Amino acid sequence: TITASMEDYLEMIYRLAGKKGYTRMGDLASALNVQPPSASKMVQKLADMGYLQFEKYGVIELSKKGQEHGQYLLKRHETLERFLSIIGVKEQLLEETEKIEHYISPETIGKIMLLVEFMENNFEWKQAFYEFQKHEG
Amino acid sequence: TITASMEDYLEMIYRLAGKKGYTRMGDLASALNVQPPSASKMVQKLADMGYLQFEKYGVIELSKKGQEHGQYLLKRHETLERFLSIIGVKEQLLEETEKIEHYISPETIGKIMLLVEFMENNFEWKQAFYEFQKHEG
Ligand SMILES: [Mn+2]
Ligand SMILES: [Mn+2]
Repeated sequence: TITASMEDYLEMIYRLAGKKGYTRMGDLASALNVQPPSASKMVQKLADMGYLQFEKYGVIELSKKGQEHGQYLLKRHETLERFLSIIGVKEQLLEETEKIEHYISPETIGKIMLLVEFMENNFEWKQAFYEFQKHEG
Repeated sequence: TITASMEDYLEMIYRLAGKKGYTRMGDLASALNVQPPSASKMVQKLADMGYLQFEKYGVIELSKKGQEHGQYLLKRHETLERFLSIIGVKEQLLEETEKIEHYISPETIGKIMLLVEFMENNFEWKQAFYEFQKHEG
């Protein structure tokens, strides 16, 4: 099964690949702030699992499976970060997202996404909650 | 620092100790479904960290530090479980809580607690959210 670290790699590859559908080992290594040989090792594991094809130190191209899972991982990250932000988490929002994201099931992410959409689209609700926070928090 | 597994032990010791303020190694081992020697090893680590005193295979008594942190861990668990339940997570609510709880900061738990209290005390909000879920979910 895919580890937390592999998930971080796949999420970043998906971010970098964007509409082009591919990225490069050097760009991935810089984005993750690791040395190319370390990136290469992890990318090999993702290739073994069928998420992508790659050339050593060259182009990395996501498979259909990699595209789909990468898209889910990015959505999971964004959903969680929006949720933490809307409830008022201020310290280390990104670090907190990075820690929690790996342990949340698809079902829970789906529910949180609905909650975030509901909260973002109901101005009155947001006002009432922020008032409540001021008095109880 | 305290590991996820140590947190589970301390949380359970705090649950079992309750108002009495102490529990027994045998009760702890049964509650966690582990063998007494395994429980004993982990309890030794918690003792080394100043969370409790214990007699081998006998009484386990929380220190002030252990009481305080145990109380926080139990509150963290309950807050997360109430939150997941109120947003409609149905599959493996307990397992999901057990996975996520270790990675959530005190600040985030505080914000989630306020959110849960707000949601539980605003019937109209809950109705509106469940309606929204029905149509968007
Ligand atoms: Mn992420
Ligand atoms: Mn727990």
